[in-house]
Amino acid sequence: MKIQNKATLELSHDEMKHYGYKVVDAIVEHFATQNEKLPVVSGSREEMEDLFLEDAPEKSSDPQKVLNFVLNEVMTKSNIVSHPKSYSFVPGPSNYISAMADGLASGFNIFSGGWQASPAAAEMEIVTMNWLLKMFGFPQKKGGGIFTSGGSMANLTALVTARTVKCGDDFSKAVIYLSDQAHSSNIKAIRVLGFKKEQIRVIPTDGEFKFSLNKLKNAIAKDRLEGLQPFCLIATAGTTNTGTVDPLSEIAKICKKEDIWFHIDGAYGGFAILSEDGKKAMKGIEKADSLTVDPHKWFYQPYEIGCLLIKNHKWLKGTFTEKPEYLRDIEGNTSEINFYDHGIELTRRFRALKFYMSVKTFGMGEFRKAISYNIKLAEATESFLRTSSNWEVISPATLAVINFRYNPIGNKLSEKKLDALNQRISQSVVNSKEALLVTTVLNGQVVLRMCLINPRTTLTDVKETIALCESFAAEKALV
Amino acid sequence: MKIQNKATLELSHDEMKHYGYKVVDAIVEHFATQNEKLPVVSGSREEMEDLFLEDAPEKSSDPQKVLNFVLNEVMTKSNIVSHPKSYSFVPGPSNYISAMADGLASGFNIFSGGWQASPAAAEMEIVTMNWLLKMFGFPQKKGGGIFTSGGSMANLTALVTARTVKCGDDFSKAVIYLSDQAHSSNIKAIRVLGFKKEQIRVIPTDGEFKFSLNKLKNAIAKDRLEGLQPFCLIATAGTTNTGTVDPLSEIAKICKKEDIWFHIDGAYGGFAILSEDGKKAMKGIEKADSLTVDPHKWFYQPYEIGCLLIKNHKWLKGTFTEKPEYLRDIEGNTSEINFYDHGIELTRRFRALKFYMSVKTFGMGEFRKAISYNIKLAEATESFLRTSSNWEVISPATLAVINFRYNPIGNKLSEKKLDALNQRISQSVVNSKEALLVTTVLNGQVVLRMCLINPRTTLTDVKETIALCESFAAEKALV
Ligand SMILES: Cc1ncc(COP(=O)(O)O)c(C=O)c1O
Ligand SMILES: Cc1ncc(COP(=O)(O)O)c(C=O)c1O
Repeated sequence: MKIQNKATLELSHDEMKHYGYKVVDAIVEHFATQNEKLPVVSGSREEMEDLFLEDAPEKSSDPQKVLNFVLNEVMTKSNIVSHPKSYSFVPGPSNYISAMADGLASGFNIFSGGWQASPAAAEMEIVTMNWLLKMFGFPQKKGGGIFTSGGSMANLTALVTARTVKCGDDFSKAVIYLSDQAHSSNIKAIRVLGFKKEQIRVIPTDGEFKFSLNKLKNAIAKDRLEGLQPFCLIATAGTTNTGTVDPLSEIAKICKKEDIWFHIDGAYGGFAILSEDGKKAMKGIEKADSLTVDPHKWFYQPYEIGCLLIKNHKWLKGTFTEKPEYLRDIEGNTSEINFYDHGIELTRRFRALKFYMSVKTFGMGEFRKAISYNIKLAEATESFLRTSSNWEVISPATLAVINFRYNPIGNKLSEKKLDALNQRISQSVVNSKEALLVTTVLNGQVVLRMCLINPRTTLTDVKETIALCESFAAEKALV
Repeated sequence: MKIQNKATLELSHDEMKHYGYKVVDAIVEHFATQNEKLPVVSGSREEMEDLFLEDAPEKSSDPQKVLNFVLNEVMTKSNIVSHPKSYSFVPGPSNYISAMADGLASGFNIFSGGWQASPAAAEMEIVTMNWLLKMFGFPQKKGGGIFTSGGSMANLTALVTARTVKCGDDFSKAVIYLSDQAHSSNIKAIRVLGFKKEQIRVIPTDGEFKFSLNKLKNAIAKDRLEGLQPFCLIATAGTTNTGTVDPLSEIAKICKKEDIWFHIDGAYGGFAILSEDGKKAMKGIEKADSLTVDPHKWFYQPYEIGCLLIKNHKWLKGTFTEKPEYLRDIEGNTSEINFYDHGIELTRRFRALKFYMSVKTFGMGEFRKAISYNIKLAEATESFLRTSSNWEVISPATLAVINFRYNPIGNKLSEKKLDALNQRISQSVVNSKEALLVTTVLNGQVVLRMCLINPRTTLTDVKETIALCESFAAEKALV
């Protein structure tokens, strides 16, 4: 039989170089100009379909043409989440070194599932995990962890482990506790895991959006009386809404006494520990059984990289090991970790590389400084708002998040009107495309929320945005 | 308050260019020489610790030095899964365009969770999902799907959906069926979902490694008699071990009659549908309720990209929607899909980009040709082995997978000795670093397995590897 293949999906050496340099040029241009562009885009489904909807082409096209189309039409129709005036959700400031590291990981297509496939990738994950264990005061020898695609998967992985360790196969009586400010990914994970709604206790927070210890204790006691099994509690170290840190040390005590798995979702706020103020706020974080932190948030990494830390690495392995036959040859010595045995994914990107390269290049000190600056910037924003008669701070600067609303002194608008007004301010700002500033709801009030984790955001940026809000407020208030 | 930040984690324009070009040079060099290098590396935990273990540096380092270290020490210590002689597990042939697309996605840090954050990314996912729906004969209007990190997550996402749609909250009596050749990620997902071991029926396969319909029917009937709820069946379109496709049309009928969710795991084999022979083998795939395919396997994409297709897109949304308050502003018109509502992840990379760019650049025709070639290459390998008196084909070429063992005619070794001999052959080949060829177990026999999905692998490569095996076999047989 004679067979030959011409469809090797290859480009010539020169074509590759030319193409690659163009890609780099575009990325560099993006980094060099991202502070100046408008951060917000918009586009309806209809508009997007007009631009992009087509059948899969059977024939090839000029690579450069496809690239140009992507650069001009596709890459320009996304919000710039790394923009200094992108304040909403959790921004993604990113950094150039890590973006290039991601390119390398894809370029070399490194399989980071098992030790044998890539001893270097596995070891890099171990090394960087050690940095993280140390950073959060987790045990260095016994502790472990894994990089995930993000906070959602880290929380899910934690909760599967908690369920396995604490309940085994039968979790029909198990109850899980979290506050009404816990991130929705936790509820999603709990439901994926097969818990019924009745097994979830959403405990109201106190006036400062913290887990109410009293209500928590009541709930646990009641569940015990009913013969249920309180097995897991999710506290938040930096809520998405307000940056609030639950009373971790007190919760740790309760969990210890009650034999409850203590999970902390620090996806957003965890890295505040690198600053002095944040370190105080994070007291007790080291007492968790499992901890989610998200380097693609406040550790300035591009998407995706989340991380789960765990007090005892054997818990992960005990939960996730399945051994198919075709993987039997690649079981090494037990110290040679196969990360596919420590989580849900078998095939895994080399996520550790960007974490490693950015820390090695910039040094942890730079990360510390950037995070400290972010916290200070939010405090400065609070001070600025407090000196104005137009603005009311609803939730003070906490781990770089601040919530406020337009409510001029003497202007006696009803709550309903205030809600509508602040909603319209946000809408106008977004429509202007000058800043991404959206609302959230706190205690039933519609408020504006800024999450200030971009190290390139200046107080001037913030002041400009507030002035923009005021200009729209003036218009809207007339209506 | 006066605050200033100098830790912006930035590089100068020139530094970025210089650095980026070096990254591209390295990737191009990798692509240009990947066929020639030795595909296998090895490294013990000790060796890796010697190289990489260190504390997180507080101070910054020269970016170029870090990059050089990574290029010289890290990137060289991974198996080259895209090497023509990387036959094991599921190879990752990848392609340059998609690697660059991944770089772009990271470079621009595009958030592909919600429509508002990136209308272009959301639409690209819709457009490419349409291509896939069409490719697999799924309904274009009602159907839907989502890109995931890989097959493990696609299977997990499918099974959560199946459970929600078929069982709602109470799945205590639900039973799930899969064959003993189903991929381990399915069992892992089932366990993550909270099913007990007793709820899983692993049905033995027939002589050809296919789902035994008779045994399946018996199992379902028995479960019904016991008052249980057969709710989901996982068939495989291309098993990892042997490339076998379960009898999809017959299984579809059983599922329909029994009101069982029909999931097909086509992570490995699904894309065979692009070839003529594969299309025949895949008959019935369009009848699935959900289908996993993995573009990072036989669609030549770099890690990570898996895909779940579903018959009715509402099932995904119904299963995965959770609405936190701070996301309330970004709910658009319902035709503007927020993919975070269709799966587990909130933050998501722009995975669709590489799929889109590679198909646009090479054209679907090239993918078709490459896949057809892979299938033919496996058949040619089978023919070649059959003409040799040294080799026994244990499982014939099926969707580019073939299993065989060294068993010279007239050489009456016991099964135990044959197992040991083939194991040693594999070990010697791996030790030589010339090829990645490991064993699997079929019907209790240790066999060598080749998965031939690299479009750059030639029949000469295969023959060289077999000759290498024979040279080692000659040595070992003497022992
Ligand atoms: C506190 C918290 N936990 C979890 C998540 C989910 O993380 P991801 O979007 O990476 O899945 C978020 C996202 O904003 C968050 O703020
Ligand atoms: C049939 C099958 N299903 C699922 C998977 C898991 O896919 P992934 O490694 O992308 O998680 C594999 C991996 O080889 C597979 O072969």
